[in-house]
Formats: sequence, C-alpha cells, structure tokens
Amino acid sequence: MLLCDIGNTSYHFFDGEIESKEDVKIFNPKQIKEEVYFICVNQSLKVILSRLENWIDLAKKIDITDYYDTMGIDRIIACESITNGIIIDAGSAITIDMVKNGVFKGGFIYPGVTAMSKTYENISSALKYPFNFDIDLSTLPKNSKDAITYGYLKTLQAEVISYDMPIYLTGGDSKKLKKIFPNSILDERLLFKAMAKLVNF
Amino acid sequence: MLLCDIGNTSYHFFDGEIESKEDVKIFNPKQIKEEVYFICVNQSLKVILSRLENWIDLAKKIDITDYYDTMGIDRIIACESITNGIIIDAGSAITIDMVKNGVFKGGFIYPGVTAMSKTYENISSALKYPFNFDIDLSTLPKNSKDAITYGYLKTLQAEVISYDMPIYLTGGDSKKLKKIFPNSILDERLLFKAMAKLVNF
Repeated sequence: MLLCDIGNTSYHFFDGEIESKEDVKIFNPKQIKEEVYFICVNQSLKVILSRLENWIDLAKKIDITDYYDTMGIDRIIACESITNGIIIDAGSAITIDMVKNGVFKGGFIYPGVTAMSKTYENISSALKYPFNFDIDLSTLPKNSKDAITYGYLKTLQAEVISYDMPIYLTGGDSKKLKKIFPNSILDERLLFKAMAKLVNF
Repeated sequence: MLLCDIGNTSYHFFDGEIESKEDVKIFNPKQIKEEVYFICVNQSLKVILSRLENWIDLAKKIDITDYYDTMGIDRIIACESITNGIIIDAGSAITIDMVKNGVFKGGFIYPGVTAMSKTYENISSALKYPFNFDIDLSTLPKNSKDAITYGYLKTLQAEVISYDMPIYLTGGDSKKLKKIFPNSILDERLLFKAMAKLVNF
C-alpha cells in the first residue's frame, strides 16, 4: 500500500518509510500494481486515475461540506488532521488555513517562495535577489534585497502571528518559513500523516 | 518647461496642467526642445539623456545620503515631499516608504496589482481571478477569489496600518488601493508636485 499526494507538477509517494517523487508529465500511474490511496489537485489526472481500480481517491472519505467547492483537497486533508491551529503549507503556493474547535474557519493563499521571487525579478531586473530568510523583520529595510524580503515575509508573518494560534508548517519550503515562524511546529509529513489516519495506514 | 517621470515602460510628462505618456521603446527624447526636468529609474536611458542639454536630471538636486544606493529616485523624491507619513506608490511594484520628522526611516517593496495577479495565475489556472477590491478583510475567506485577494491585500493593509501614520497614496493603481486604505490621502500627482517644488515650477 502506498500514499500519494498529487500536485500540479509531481506525484509524491510515501510507503510508510520512504518518500519519492515522479514527474506528472512522464510518469505512468498504470505501472503501480499495489493499492495507492491518493489525493489529487490536478483535475485531468483525476479523470485518468478514476479508471484505475487500485488508485483510491481519499477525497471520497471526507465530508467536504465544511469547506468550499474550489478548495484544494490537500488543504482539506491537512485541516482535518488538527483541532485548533493554523496550517501553513508552503509549496508553489503557500496556503494558510485556520481550524478552530475542529471546524475550518477560512484561509488564504499567498505566492510560494519561487513564484514570488520570479515576480520581483519580472517587475525589474533591479529586484532580482534571493530572499534573505535571516532578515531582521523588526525594522524597515534600507536596501533592495531586504526591501523585497520584508515585502514578502513581514506581511505574511504579521498576519499569521495576529491569529495567536498554534502554527503547523509543512510543504517543500517549510524549513525556510520556520525562520520567520520560530515557534511553529514543522512537520514535512503532515499531509501523509493526515492521509494515513484516514486509512488506518 | 516640462516635468517628466521616466519608468521602465514609459515617459510620463506633466506641463503643469496636462499629463501625457510616451513608450520608452519608441519615443525619441531629442524631439523635445524645451527644458525637461526629469527623474529616471531606467539606467540606460539616463545615459542617453545625459547627452541632451535641455534634459535636466533632478536627482542631482537631492542630497541622497539619507537614502540608500539602489533606492529608486522616484521613491526618494516622493519621500522628500513629506515630513511625517507613509508613501505608497502603486505602480508595477508597490513601494512603501516611511518618513519621520523629515527623515527616511526605511521602506519595502511589494508586487504591483498586475504583477501579483499574474503570479497567482502562473502558479495555477485555478487561481486566475481578478482581485476583489471590495472584499471584507475582517474575516478569513472561504472561496478562491477572496483567498488570493486576502493573501495579497490583507497582509499589506495590516502591515501599513500598524505604523499608525498618515498614508499618502500615489501611482497608477492608487485608486484601487484607496479601497483598503480608506483614510489615506490619494494624490496621483504627488510625484510631479514633489518635482515641481524642487524647481519652483
């Protein structure tokens, strides 16, 4: 049995011990013969997978009435795994969702690290800098690198901290964001753990 | 006599009454014979203009030691025009600068409306929505359009409002931002007014 989180760019597998990734453009899901419990935000792939008996969509095991129609199933599954707190999933987009007493209270979407870096670069080559995750966000910057970093990170940090709730960090860039949310709980396998719970894996 | 604010995409002229724009890619500055007092963030254009006698660079009239090397001259000129407050210049980038008792205290750079809209769209076609400037930012959203709008606008709004200072809004998207900063002073000609002050126009 495998768990698989399918995004817009890759299949992300977990067998209970080891994670692996496959490119959605070249990977053929038919080559897997064992049972795969998956979540998938890629609509065209979902159609293909629905024809494969051993690929089981975990979305069907969730009562999604508490959520909203276009909300990604990855966000929903993550929210299902906590009772109180903020879940920050830092991937190509950063999703920020609030759960209070087991109920989803809403959330917002912020650009991921790579996407936002490209945004600044595309506005002007003078803004082509890597973000400075070691920045001091307590004071307004006086240089270009910190000026874009502050614009990207301080605004997000201040908003999230204002909720005064436990923060759970996951996703590919979660280690970077840990620097601006030092008291958060970092769990790169939060989503797989939430999926595993649903199937008693 | 003319004033001209030159960005990465256009020459923006003001003759004291009427504004006009010319594309930097096709406009020939030699065709203007009267005196033009300009600011320019486009380094290659600056070299060309330095050879034209009637084009006078206003950057030379400013003591820029209070600012930083790579700070755009448009931001510097705007800061010079106020004593206390936050200047938000909403163009292809949104710059946010603080002036206290006539001294620049620092600032940050946030993506402009068009740039940020493209960012979300590029992350996923499921995030291709125009921003909802009439959003209620007091509560976390439960739909995709508001989820990206909140990510873009609430984070900026909360950060700027936390300074508790007068807010001056300018730039091409200033009218849109006025909706999230209702108590701000909107002045689309703030930069031209600041330039005019320097030359007693």
